Amino acid sequence: MTLDDAPVDLRSDTVTQPSPAMREAMYRAAVGDDVYLEDPTVNALQERAAALLGFEAALFVPTGTMGNQICLRLHAPPGSEIIVEARAHIYEWELGAPAALSGLTPRLVPSERGLPTWEAIAAAIQPRVYYRTRTALLCLENTHNMHGGTVAPPAAVARILQEAAACGLPVHLDGARLFNAAVACGLRVAELAQGFSSVMICLSKGLGAPVGSLVFGTRDFIERARTVRKMLGGGMRQAGVLAAAGLVALEEGPAHLADDHANARWLAAELAQLPGLDVDLTRVETNIVMCDVTPTGMTASDFCAGLKSCGVLAGPAGPYTVRFVTHRDAPRSACQRAVEAIAGFLKNRLS
Amino acid sequence: MTLDDAPVDLRSDTVTQPSPAMREAMYRAAVGDDVYLEDPTVNALQERAAALLGFEAALFVPTGTMGNQICLRLHAPPGSEIIVEARAHIYEWELGAPAALSGLTPRLVPSERGLPTWEAIAAAIQPRVYYRTRTALLCLENTHNMHGGTVAPPAAVARILQEAAACGLPVHLDGARLFNAAVACGLRVAELAQGFSSVMICLSKGLGAPVGSLVFGTRDFIERARTVRKMLGGGMRQAGVLAAAGLVALEEGPAHLADDHANARWLAAELAQLPGLDVDLTRVETNIVMCDVTPTGMTASDFCAGLKSCGVLAGPAGPYTVRFVTHRDAPRSACQRAVEAIAGFLKNRLS
Amino acid sequence: MTLDDAPVDLRSDTVTQPSPAMREAMYRAAVGDDVYLEDPTVNALQERAAALLGFEAALFVPTGTMGNQICLRLHAPPGSEIIVEARAHIYEWELGAPAALSGLTPRLVPSERGLPTWEAIAAAIQPRVYYRTRTALLCLENTHNMHGGTVAPPAAVARILQEAAACGLPVHLDGARLFNAAVACGLRVAELAQGFSSVMICLSKGLGAPVGSLVFGTRDFIERARTVRKMLGGGMRQAGVLAAAGLVALEEGPAHLADDHANARWLAAELAQLPGLDVDLTRVETNIVMCDVTPTGMTASDFCAGLKSCGVLAGPAGPYTVRFVTHRDAPRSACQRAVEAIAGFLKNRLS
Amino acid sequence: MTLDDAPVDLRSDTVTQPSPAMREAMYRAAVGDDVYLEDPTVNALQERAAALLGFEAALFVPTGTMGNQICLRLHAPPGSEIIVEARAHIYEWELGAPAALSGLTPRLVPSERGLPTWEAIAAAIQPRVYYRTRTALLCLENTHNMHGGTVAPPAAVARILQEAAACGLPVHLDGARLFNAAVACGLRVAELAQGFSSVMICLSKGLGAPVGSLVFGTRDFIERARTVRKMLGGGMRQAGVLAAAGLVALEEGPAHLADDHANARWLAAELAQLPGLDVDLTRVETNIVMCDVTPTGMTASDFCAGLKSCGVLAGPAGPYTVRFVTHRDAPRSACQRAVEAIAGFLKNRLS
Repeated sequence: MTLDDAPVDLRSDTVTQPSPAMREAMYRAAVGDDVYLEDPTVNALQERAAALLGFEAALFVPTGTMGNQICLRLHAPPGSEIIVEARAHIYEWELGAPAALSGLTPRLVPSERGLPTWEAIAAAIQPRVYYRTRTALLCLENTHNMHGGTVAPPAAVARILQEAAACGLPVHLDGARLFNAAVACGLRVAELAQGFSSVMICLSKGLGAPVGSLVFGTRDFIERARTVRKMLGGGMRQAGVLAAAGLVALEEGPAHLADDHANARWLAAELAQLPGLDVDLTRVETNIVMCDVTPTGMTASDFCAGLKSCGVLAGPAGPYTVRFVTHRDAPRSACQRAVEAIAGFLKNRLS
Repeated sequence: MTLDDAPVDLRSDTVTQPSPAMREAMYRAAVGDDVYLEDPTVNALQERAAALLGFEAALFVPTGTMGNQICLRLHAPPGSEIIVEARAHIYEWELGAPAALSGLTPRLVPSERGLPTWEAIAAAIQPRVYYRTRTALLCLENTHNMHGGTVAPPAAVARILQEAAACGLPVHLDGARLFNAAVACGLRVAELAQGFSSVMICLSKGLGAPVGSLVFGTRDFIERARTVRKMLGGGMRQAGVLAAAGLVALEEGPAHLADDHANARWLAAELAQLPGLDVDLTRVETNIVMCDVTPTGMTASDFCAGLKSCGVLAGPAGPYTVRFVTHRDAPRSACQRAVEAIAGFLKNRLS
Repeated sequence: MTLDDAPVDLRSDTVTQPSPAMREAMYRAAVGDDVYLEDPTVNALQERAAALLGFEAALFVPTGTMGNQICLRLHAPPGSEIIVEARAHIYEWELGAPAALSGLTPRLVPSERGLPTWEAIAAAIQPRVYYRTRTALLCLENTHNMHGGTVAPPAAVARILQEAAACGLPVHLDGARLFNAAVACGLRVAELAQGFSSVMICLSKGLGAPVGSLVFGTRDFIERARTVRKMLGGGMRQAGVLAAAGLVALEEGPAHLADDHANARWLAAELAQLPGLDVDLTRVETNIVMCDVTPTGMTASDFCAGLKSCGVLAGPAGPYTVRFVTHRDAPRSACQRAVEAIAGFLKNRLS
Repeated sequence: MTLDDAPVDLRSDTVTQPSPAMREAMYRAAVGDDVYLEDPTVNALQERAAALLGFEAALFVPTGTMGNQICLRLHAPPGSEIIVEARAHIYEWELGAPAALSGLTPRLVPSERGLPTWEAIAAAIQPRVYYRTRTALLCLENTHNMHGGTVAPPAAVARILQEAAACGLPVHLDGARLFNAAVACGLRVAELAQGFSSVMICLSKGLGAPVGSLVFGTRDFIERARTVRKMLGGGMRQAGVLAAAGLVALEEGPAHLADDHANARWLAAELAQLPGLDVDLTRVETNIVMCDVTPTGMTASDFCAGLKSCGVLAGPAGPYTVRFVTHRDAPRSACQRAVEAIAGFLKNRLS
């Protein structure tokens, strides 16, 4: 198979290959035993990232799921409720971990574009009476994956944080794609992370690292996070080999994201013109394109299976919704090939 | 305080006092140590109830919450999802126990009147892929408390049971007020319990017993339920003193329910004519009346606090919804007194 | 079957029948809905018991298991360790509830007679490093069931409480049979309960009530206990019918215990003289007699099965250990019948 | 600091640096998204390892703790007991995860050298009555860390497996250092893994990989393990960068272990001759040396702190027990330097 024959993989920005600089960094990384807190590269990554996000401390974790679940467990006692947006990753894609690992019940709040209004959140906070579940945490997601990579408007977030603080409600940010949000807003990630009780970001999505995420909080919070990480089985040894790539991802990753976003907009505009596909262009704010395939008469699964045989990989994000994600290993030329293949596929199917 | 001065308590049918026959039965009950399975009255109640509902076996439990939670734990492994109606008692009023005790995530399905359509349920069943939470149980509630005591239409239930069986999905019935449903439908409780994997009923609501609920299932299921009951702290000793009242409740309780329902309809019709109260009379199928107090300008809490000072007790069931529940200790005359007091209260407030 | 033909039941003091005064009290009890905190008899019992034990507040619960588990959950966060004596009821007889309900790992400390030394406890406290489980609670048991109803020496308890307080370690007392300990020591229960963070006592063992236990703590602790009780399914409605018997048990129960203890000593001395039975008379401090049946060549189970056919009920407490428990429904005359029957059984078997 | 000045690190074999071949392999690794099961290097490692251990399938996990905990969760339902040796890693060093993550209670069985007798295990299996916790799993550890790297005698293991199978009891092997056991016995790892329901091995201990462990079981077991791994946050993306080093570890690692063992024996013999140190030479079967420092008058912590200032790192494994672990980055010359430094330290302290 030549490069041109390789499928265009738009299933997720998690599929990115480590860059040459990352491989080089991993090769040369100074490492130690991170369970003893002695891996210099892990320590460097944690310090660099904490400074970048404006937090006291950070902890390297194998995945975003582990990062989110550690924070949930630390903020919310078992038997309490956590408020999450109705289509949040924490609720939909983390295998019931809030309940299974920490005894937490998600209280869902729907939203138009991924960020609930404060009014909707306030209505979901349980009254403080002994026979009602206690509300212990609010979780936001930025960008919001299932809403199509939408960016949480900073002013709306600021108001939510202010109101939540007034209620004594901690707020966790699932910032798996927070760098995408920052690029889209033209703000620094620290500005988007400010005011949250804890934040999780992924190095292995648009930033391109092979493995790894980070959680952020106060020094005390991160110390306790280290214990939970070990209990969950995330206390790796010479993790510096991964952290080395993570440091490169922090350096070179953000610069690529504007291209990913431009490619997503281009892709969305092209797809919107194809017969049978509905795309809400106003929602394409970052690197995700949600495409309603209902008019094709196919389910999302059938559509994706068909596309695959034409050399394009995408994933179902609902019964009739297909998700395309742009990333650094799918440059404009690959997106163009994808559009051509999809056009051909539809022509064939719908004729 | 004379009897006429006593408040009319319409907060719940749980407030009923044990009847003279119940007190007499408790006084005379033959009892033994039920942890050794040797309480003759508990055994008699369990056998009588199992026969009545058409199940192999039954287990006496201190509360409906414990009954529901035992069944959930036995049907669904930790980390799985249970499908529940969006306003189900299991989700709203059992203190997050599905997550806290059994690691279960509720997957909410909204409905018009308490019983979701099979289509809505089917859409909530997760695909069987390794990265999605497994759907392990469907829970129905009949009558449905938060929807106003609505009865699940038997034909719709039958279809759901049939489809769920075809999917291999067990179905639990929260039948805290199943006898109310049976009376409203003119069917036997066994007909409404048929086809469920497990059922819970309460003796201490409309049936009038002071304490106690029952769970139903196969003989094997009930044996395992006994272990979970003990672990949860529900393995009582001479529980026959409670079971004796429960047996009386099963005998004399159902006959009273038709009166409760008539009183609820009467009450609803009267309240609907009062200024400031909105009542959907079509939903008053059993012994619950939900009343929207929005037009009064009061919240449900304020409304209830005001009513209390006028000698009527009711409870908030939403920010602007007040719930009235009729029961054997609130006969028509008490309901009449309540309506007069409410009318006076509104006249006073709204003038 | 005449009374003389009825088996002598020495399996446990949980088998006691409610006394006439208890039945009368249950019959006449003023009751209300305890979920609304409105059952006057439950409230009276809780206040009376709190005063008796010298605590701010008390909560009525269906069983000792629930009482213990509520306290464990409130004191110890999930993932922490609780120090318990190696044969503690909490570890051996509560169905793994500390782990299953609250995510707690028991750290076992052996002891000679039921109360570990402070030195043994101190050695079981984990160092405060991030990679070690945190020690969150110490549990003591008085009297100690599996050690044969032994009484915890007050001076030794006082030292443990002092040292634990110095370490910031809360201490829970499983006082299922604390009244037996008080009678044996000639002290008030308040003296034995003093200094503990929380206490659980049972009304349904030697005190003779049909159902019920109580937990004790600060007012704040008991408020939070009420929430956990409801989540576990222990929030009963007109629980006053049980509390009424509990109040009688508190009044008339303690006076009977001295007889139970005298009967146990008498029984132990008699059994010690029978061939094939080893009894450590120095351990018979309250109402329990542990009997080693090894010399008979029978297992404890076989021995108990054989005894049953001779009209005496006892229970295995180990592979070769049989437990006899005296109580108010087994007066001296019944103990005498039991000894005769056991003597006959042994004569028959060992000849 | 020159190489000779660098401390000799004998705290654990987890401190090994990735070898040049590992770094090279990581640099060149073909990788993909392992959440989609598409990382060729992860797949190769899993297949290679499964073949090596004689299992149907294997799963790569970030740590041994996660590997063990996944297996425990899959074998044992919440509320059940797992039998573990009294000083097992699963009990002592995994942060209470069996209880915290899976609701499991460890039932401890002591042993002389790390492997309990079948008789001791059998006595720990709970009777199958409804009021006793169910015994759901037996865990063995080979080599046994806290007993000093002792090897489980294959014949004794075989008998345990046979008896456990006859009881229907699954058996999990914590084989974090199973390769050390194999080298010590002169057997293949497959021979030591045979008959277990599941096995966990670490690549990051003596085998030298920077990160990673593997679990083994039937194909169905491993499929379910993949779900639990994702829920725990172990579903990494381009994990092939780690798996590449793991493949090298499997190739080159075992050959080094004989040297580690020889070095441990040499070290033990030298330490045994130093004043103040007690070493049981008969227990030095692999790469661990446990040293009783009681005669020095120092605690293990003080001893280790003192040693550190002399350029030797070791870790406390008990109040007066210090653990030394040999590994490929501490060759004989380093061990010699360590002995000299320890001798000097003792001379200084004890004079």
